[in-house]
Amino acid sequence: MHAFDPVREDKFTFGLWTVGNPGRDPFGPSVRPTMDPNHIVRRLAELGAYGVNLHDNDLVPFGASASEQSAIVKAFKQTLADTGMVVPMATTNLFSHPIFKDGAFTANDPKVRAFALQKTMRAIDLGAELGAKIYVFWGGREGVEADACRDPRTAWHRMRDAIDFLCGYVRDNNYGMKFALEAKPNEPRGDLYLPTTGHMLHFISTLEHGDMVGVNPEVAHEVMAGLSFAHNVAQAMACDKLFHIDLNGQKIGRYDQDLRFGSEDQKGAFLLVRLLEGTAGGPGYEGPRHFDAHAYRTEDEEGVWAFATGCMRTYKILKARAQAFDADPEVTALIAEQTDRELTPLLTRGYTIQKAAKLKELEIDVDAVASRGLGYERLDQLMVEHLLGVRGG
Amino acid sequence: MHAFDPVREDKFTFGLWTVGNPGRDPFGPSVRPTMDPNHIVRRLAELGAYGVNLHDNDLVPFGASASEQSAIVKAFKQTLADTGMVVPMATTNLFSHPIFKDGAFTANDPKVRAFALQKTMRAIDLGAELGAKIYVFWGGREGVEADACRDPRTAWHRMRDAIDFLCGYVRDNNYGMKFALEAKPNEPRGDLYLPTTGHMLHFISTLEHGDMVGVNPEVAHEVMAGLSFAHNVAQAMACDKLFHIDLNGQKIGRYDQDLRFGSEDQKGAFLLVRLLEGTAGGPGYEGPRHFDAHAYRTEDEEGVWAFATGCMRTYKILKARAQAFDADPEVTALIAEQTDRELTPLLTRGYTIQKAAKLKELEIDVDAVASRGLGYERLDQLMVEHLLGVRGG
Amino acid sequence: MHAFDPVREDKFTFGLWTVGNPGRDPFGPSVRPTMDPNHIVRRLAELGAYGVNLHDNDLVPFGASASEQSAIVKAFKQTLADTGMVVPMATTNLFSHPIFKDGAFTANDPKVRAFALQKTMRAIDLGAELGAKIYVFWGGREGVEADACRDPRTAWHRMRDAIDFLCGYVRDNNYGMKFALEAKPNEPRGDLYLPTTGHMLHFISTLEHGDMVGVNPEVAHEVMAGLSFAHNVAQAMACDKLFHIDLNGQKIGRYDQDLRFGSEDQKGAFLLVRLLEGTAGGPGYEGPRHFDAHAYRTEDEEGVWAFATGCMRTYKILKARAQAFDADPEVTALIAEQTDRELTPLLTRGYTIQKAAKLKELEIDVDAVASRGLGYERLDQLMVEHLLGVRGG
Amino acid sequence: MHAFDPVREDKFTFGLWTVGNPGRDPFGPSVRPTMDPNHIVRRLAELGAYGVNLHDNDLVPFGASASEQSAIVKAFKQTLADTGMVVPMATTNLFSHPIFKDGAFTANDPKVRAFALQKTMRAIDLGAELGAKIYVFWGGREGVEADACRDPRTAWHRMRDAIDFLCGYVRDNNYGMKFALEAKPNEPRGDLYLPTTGHMLHFISTLEHGDMVGVNPEVAHEVMAGLSFAHNVAQAMACDKLFHIDLNGQKIGRYDQDLRFGSEDQKGAFLLVRLLEGTAGGPGYEGPRHFDAHAYRTEDEEGVWAFATGCMRTYKILKARAQAFDADPEVTALIAEQTDRELTPLLTRGYTIQKAAKLKELEIDVDAVASRGLGYERLDQLMVEHLLGVRGG
Repeated sequence: MHAFDPVREDKFTFGLWTVGNPGRDPFGPSVRPTMDPNHIVRRLAELGAYGVNLHDNDLVPFGASASEQSAIVKAFKQTLADTGMVVPMATTNLFSHPIFKDGAFTANDPKVRAFALQKTMRAIDLGAELGAKIYVFWGGREGVEADACRDPRTAWHRMRDAIDFLCGYVRDNNYGMKFALEAKPNEPRGDLYLPTTGHMLHFISTLEHGDMVGVNPEVAHEVMAGLSFAHNVAQAMACDKLFHIDLNGQKIGRYDQDLRFGSEDQKGAFLLVRLLEGTAGGPGYEGPRHFDAHAYRTEDEEGVWAFATGCMRTYKILKARAQAFDADPEVTALIAEQTDRELTPLLTRGYTIQKAAKLKELEIDVDAVASRGLGYERLDQLMVEHLLGVRGG
Repeated sequence: MHAFDPVREDKFTFGLWTVGNPGRDPFGPSVRPTMDPNHIVRRLAELGAYGVNLHDNDLVPFGASASEQSAIVKAFKQTLADTGMVVPMATTNLFSHPIFKDGAFTANDPKVRAFALQKTMRAIDLGAELGAKIYVFWGGREGVEADACRDPRTAWHRMRDAIDFLCGYVRDNNYGMKFALEAKPNEPRGDLYLPTTGHMLHFISTLEHGDMVGVNPEVAHEVMAGLSFAHNVAQAMACDKLFHIDLNGQKIGRYDQDLRFGSEDQKGAFLLVRLLEGTAGGPGYEGPRHFDAHAYRTEDEEGVWAFATGCMRTYKILKARAQAFDADPEVTALIAEQTDRELTPLLTRGYTIQKAAKLKELEIDVDAVASRGLGYERLDQLMVEHLLGVRGG
Repeated sequence: MHAFDPVREDKFTFGLWTVGNPGRDPFGPSVRPTMDPNHIVRRLAELGAYGVNLHDNDLVPFGASASEQSAIVKAFKQTLADTGMVVPMATTNLFSHPIFKDGAFTANDPKVRAFALQKTMRAIDLGAELGAKIYVFWGGREGVEADACRDPRTAWHRMRDAIDFLCGYVRDNNYGMKFALEAKPNEPRGDLYLPTTGHMLHFISTLEHGDMVGVNPEVAHEVMAGLSFAHNVAQAMACDKLFHIDLNGQKIGRYDQDLRFGSEDQKGAFLLVRLLEGTAGGPGYEGPRHFDAHAYRTEDEEGVWAFATGCMRTYKILKARAQAFDADPEVTALIAEQTDRELTPLLTRGYTIQKAAKLKELEIDVDAVASRGLGYERLDQLMVEHLLGVRGG
Repeated sequence: MHAFDPVREDKFTFGLWTVGNPGRDPFGPSVRPTMDPNHIVRRLAELGAYGVNLHDNDLVPFGASASEQSAIVKAFKQTLADTGMVVPMATTNLFSHPIFKDGAFTANDPKVRAFALQKTMRAIDLGAELGAKIYVFWGGREGVEADACRDPRTAWHRMRDAIDFLCGYVRDNNYGMKFALEAKPNEPRGDLYLPTTGHMLHFISTLEHGDMVGVNPEVAHEVMAGLSFAHNVAQAMACDKLFHIDLNGQKIGRYDQDLRFGSEDQKGAFLLVRLLEGTAGGPGYEGPRHFDAHAYRTEDEEGVWAFATGCMRTYKILKARAQAFDADPEVTALIAEQTDRELTPLLTRGYTIQKAAKLKELEIDVDAVASRGLGYERLDQLMVEHLLGVRGG
C-alpha cells in the first residue's frame, strides 16, 4: 500500500483555503480554528505535497497595510524555501467582501469594477512575487438572481474588457503568467455567467490575447450541472487549453460540496485520471494536480490531514488502475481504431469535390453494419472490474 | 384576446416531426395516427404559422427511391405554394436508424461515418431544393455510455472533420446555406459530446469555415442541465451566432420533455422572449421562432392543434408582457446604466499602462459602496407582476 | 392593484430568521446589520403580516442566562401586544452550534442527543410561553456524508425515540401543541435522513403519538429534488397531516435558495395556492401562510421589506388567478368528474367477490377508449393564460 | 476471479423485459430481435441465475385468447422445470397500451380504471399459476403533465381503492401473495404520483390490508431524484417492508437509464449491497436480487449476456468488498456504538417525567463535545480503499 503514498513528483497541490477551511456553512459557523498558512505549508510538505495555491486574502488579510503584507510574505517565502514547496498558482478573492455582492468585473457599479481591477492587479503582483505561473479567475459572484438587472451581453462585454485589460497588465510587467478561467453554473448566485468550461473556452476564443488564456475546470462545477467532467477536460485538452485543474468530488444537482477527491463517482474519477495521465495513448496533462476540496465539517485538524492524504492516495490508486486497464489486451482489442482502406482517406484531411462525389455514390450495406454488436457492455464491465481491483493490478 | 392570435408576420414555424409526433415513448407505442406532411402544412397555415421545418425522413422515408422522392417533393412544394408556407430550415435524421446506434459523425465504424456524410449531403440537397437557408445539426447519438470506447478528443476531431467537409460541400454547391449546431447534454446517450451551447460555440471557433456556422439552442436541452437558457442565447447573440432557435418547455433534471412553449418556467420564457424581441434595447433576433415541441401523449389530433396554438399564443402574450415591462418607468430607472465620469473611461477600450497606474492608485470607499442596496428584489417583483398581468398591459 | 395588498386576515407570517437574514453565505459574510426582533415585528405588522415564527436562538441568544431570557421575552411579548402580531409557530435551532455538526437527535454521541433533547424542551417551553400552537422540527444536520458512520436504521430509531419523547413532554405539560416535521433531501449534509414529505409522513405513521404529529412541507426542499410540491402537499392534506407550510421559491437541483415566493416556477406556485385555497372544490388549508425565504444578498433593509411585500402580493395575485381559473366554465367542463352508472359502483367502496367477478367479465372496447383525446393541452394552456392574466380576472 | 461467478444460491433474477429489451428508445426503433422467453430462461440458467420475473404481456401478448395463453404458459412451465428456474415475482403491464395514456388505477375515465383492475386480476392469476409469491405494482403512467386534470387527492383515493380491492382479490383466492409497490418520480409522465419509496411507505400505512403490502424500491428511480437509495431501502427495512428490490444503475437528474448494476456510483452500490447483505451487523434482505436493467442499444445478443453477467459479477465483488470492510478492525473501531452509562438510559425506552427532569438539568460541556473530531474522512477513505480493492480482500 505504500505504492500509493504521495511524493513530490506526483505534483499534488492544495489551496491554502482548502485544508485551511474552518467548516463554516450556510447553517453554522466555523468548527475548526483557522490555521496559519505557514503551518499548512509545513504539514502538506510532510504529507508529500508539491505546493500550495492561494487567493490574495488567504495569505494577506483584506485591508492589510503594505508593511503588514511585506512581513507576511517574507515569512511565507521562508517557509516555502524551508520546505521546498512551491506556489504554482495564485488567484484573487473577488467574492467574499460585501462590495462584490453584485459580482466584480460584471457588477453594475463602475466603482466595483474599478476596485476589482485594482485588487486583481495587486494580487497578480503578489502571485508573481511568490513565483506563480498560473493565475486563476473564478467568477465568484459574476451572475444574477434578478435577471433583469443587466443584459447578459453587457456582462459578457464587461468580462471581456476586464480579462483583456489584465492580460495587458501581465504582459507589460513581463510576469510570464498564463490565465486559467474557471466556470461554475450557480452558487452563490442563482445563475452564474459563463457557466461551464465550454462557455469559458468560447469566451477565450474572443479575447485579444487568447493565447495566454486557458481554463481551470473543476470537477464539482461541471458535475453540479450533470455534465461529463472528462468530456469537458478533453475539449480543453484537444485545444491545448487545459492550463490548470481543480480536483474534488461532488454529487449531481447539489450545493457545491467540494468533497475529497474520488469520494463520489469513482468511475468518473477514473476516467478523469486516465485522461490526465494519458494512459490510453493520447498526450496527458503536465501541470500540478490541484485539490480544491475541504474536509467535512465533522473533522478536527487531524481529520483535515486524513482528508488531504485521502485525496492524494485515491488519485494514485486510480492512476494505477488506469494503467492496468489500458494495458489489458482485452481492452485494447475492444477499442482499437478501426480503419478502412477505402473510406478512411475520404473521411479526413478536408473536403474535395471528388471525395464528395465518391461518398455520395458509395454503396453501404446498412443492415449489416447496423446489426453488429459493439461489445461496449463488456468494455464497461472490464473498466468496473479494473476499478474495483479485481483484474490486472 | 385576439391580439394574441398568430399571424404570418410573427414568423412562427414548427417541425413536421413536432405536430406530427404520434406519441411513442420508451414505455408505449404511438397513440395517434401519423399525419401526412401536406395535411400538416395546410393546418399550420390555417392556424397562422409561417413555415415548417423538417428532417429528410420526415418527408421522404428512409430508403425511398429517387423517383419516390421526386414525387413526394413535388407534391409537397405544391402544398407550400398553395398555402404560402415556407421551409426556412432543414436537417438530417442521423439517429433513428440502428446504423447510428453509436453516433454518426463520431461513430467508431468508418462505414457509419461515411454513410452519415452521404445521407447528410443528400439531405442538404433536399433542403436546398425546398429553399431552406438554415441547416441544423443535432448530434442525436454523438455520445457514449461506455466512455472508454473512444477518446473524447477523437470524437471532437471526427466531428470537426465532418462539419468542415459539409461546409465545403455547401460552398461548392453555392447553396447559400448557414449551419446551426444544436447541443444537448444527454439522452438518448448517457453523455453527449458538445453538451451545451457554450461547448458548441467553442467548437465553431475552431472550424475552417466558422463564419457560416452558428448555433441552434433549444430551451429543453439547456434547461435539462439546469442552465439559464437566456444566458446561453445571449452568449450566442453577443457573437452574432444565433442562427436559429428551438422553443419548447422543460423541467430541470428530467428526460427530454419537449413541452408546449411557456408551459414551464414562465419567468425563464419571459426572459427569453424579451431577449429575442429586443425590448430592453439591445438588438433582437430576426429569424423564425421555431417550436420544437410535441403534444402530450394524452391528445388526439385536435389536441395537437390546441398545443400548436398554445405555443404561439403564449409567445405573443410574453412579448406583450416584455414590452410593457421595459416601458415601465420604475423598471427603466432601476436598470439604467451607471456611468462615472472618472472611472468609465478606465474600464473600457483596452489596457494602457496609464490606466493601470490610475486604477492601482484609486481610493475607493469600499464600505460605502458595499452597503448600498441594489433594489433587485423590487426589480424582480416588478417582473413577476408584469408577467402575471397585474401591471402595465 | 390595492386588491393585492396584504391584510391580517390573509394570515401571512414570516420567520424572524427570514427577514432578519443578514446575507451570509458560503462565500462571504453578512452584508446587512442584524435586525432587532422587536423592530422586525413592528415593520411586518405595518406591512400587513399576521405573525412571526422563531427558533429559540432567533430571540434568545445561545447560552443566555435565565434572567437575560426573561427580559428579552418580556419585551418581545410587549411588542406583540402593541402590534397585534402573534407567534403561531416556534422551533429549535439544532444545527448552528458546532456541537450539532453530526446532527442532533441522530448524532452518534449520546451527549449530543441528550443536549438536543434538553435544548428542545426548553425551546418548547419558550414557544408555549409565546403562544405557539405549532412546533416545527427541521432536522438540520440529521444526515451524513460518510455514510458508514451509522446504520441509517439506527438514525431512524433514534429519531423516533426523540420525537416520541418530546410528544410525551408536550402532553405532560398540557401545552396543546402539535408537531410539524419538515423534510429536506440534502444540505448542509450530503444526504439528510427522511428526505421528503413522503418519508416524513411514513415516519409519523410509526410514532407512538402520531395523531399530534404532522408535516411542515417547504417548497424549496421538495423542489430541490425535482418533486412536485403540490403533490407532496396533497398527500399530506389527503391524510389531514398538513399542519404548517413553508413558502418560498427554488430552482430544481440547486443549493437551498429560499427565494421570494412566486419568483420561480410560477405554475408550480399557482398549483400550490390553488390547493391551499381550495378553489377547485376540495377542502383548503386553514393555517398560517408562512414565508421561509430571505432577500437576495444584494439588498439593504429597504430591499428586505420589498422582498417581504413581494411574497405576500404574489400569493394574493395567484389566489385571484386560481379563483378565476376554477370559475372558468371551459375549465370546469374539461375537469368534471366522469361517472359511469355501471362501473363507478364497482370501483369504489371496497372489494367483494361479486364485484371481482363482474369486473373480470366486463367487455371494454379498448381501442375506442384509447383513441379518445383528453383535451389536456387545452386545459393546461387555459391555466397558463389565467396565470398570465389574459383570461378571467 | 471465479469467486465472483454467479450461482443459483446468490438468488439473482432478471425480468424477461430486461434481457429481452430490444433497444427501442424515444429516438429510434429496436436494434435487436425480440427474444423468445423460453430462450431467455435457458440462457439465464446457464449463466447462473436463479429465476425470471415478468409482466403479463412479456409472456402472453396483449389480447391473446385463452387457448393461446394456455399453450404459451404450458411451454414456459416446462422450460422452468427443465432448467430449475423459478418465477418469484410477477407484475402487470399497465402502461404500454394507449388505453393507459392517462394512467390506469388513477385515470379519469372509469372504463380505464375498470379495465386496469380486470387486467391485473387476470395477471395475478397468471402469476399465481407460475408460482410467484411477490406481485409488483409500478404505476407506469399514474401521473400527470397538465396538473389541473385531477386533484392529486383524487388520484390518491383511486390508487387506494385499487390496491385495497386487489388485496381482497388475492386473499379471496388464497394466493398467498404479497404486494410490492414501486415508486418513480417522473417519466413517462411529467410528475408521477407517490414519487419515492417514502411516499409509497406512507401510502401503504393507510391501506386496509397494509400488512400484505410492502415496497419494491428501484435504484434508478430514487437516484433520478438525487436521493440516497441506501437510505430509502433502510427506511423500508426498518419497518419490515422491503418485499422486493430492483437493481440497476443511473445518473442523478437524467432520463430513466436502467444501466448495468454497479456501472454508476460505485460507492452507492457498495452501500446498498452492504445493507442487503447485512455485513455491518443488522439483519439483511433474504429475497431475490432482481436486476431491472437492460443492455446498451449498441449491443447484440452477445452483448446482452455480457451485460447480465456483469450485473451479477459486480454484485458479488461488492459483497466481498463489504464483508472485508466490515471485518476491518480500523472500521469497526471508528463506528462502534457509543454508550454512556448515565445518558443512554435517558435516551431510549420512552418518555417519563423523571427522565425529562434529569435531561433538563444536565450539565453538558458543550464546547468540549463540539471540538471532538469524528474521524469520518478517515472512515470514508477506508471505504473507498476497500471499494477499489486496495485493502482487505
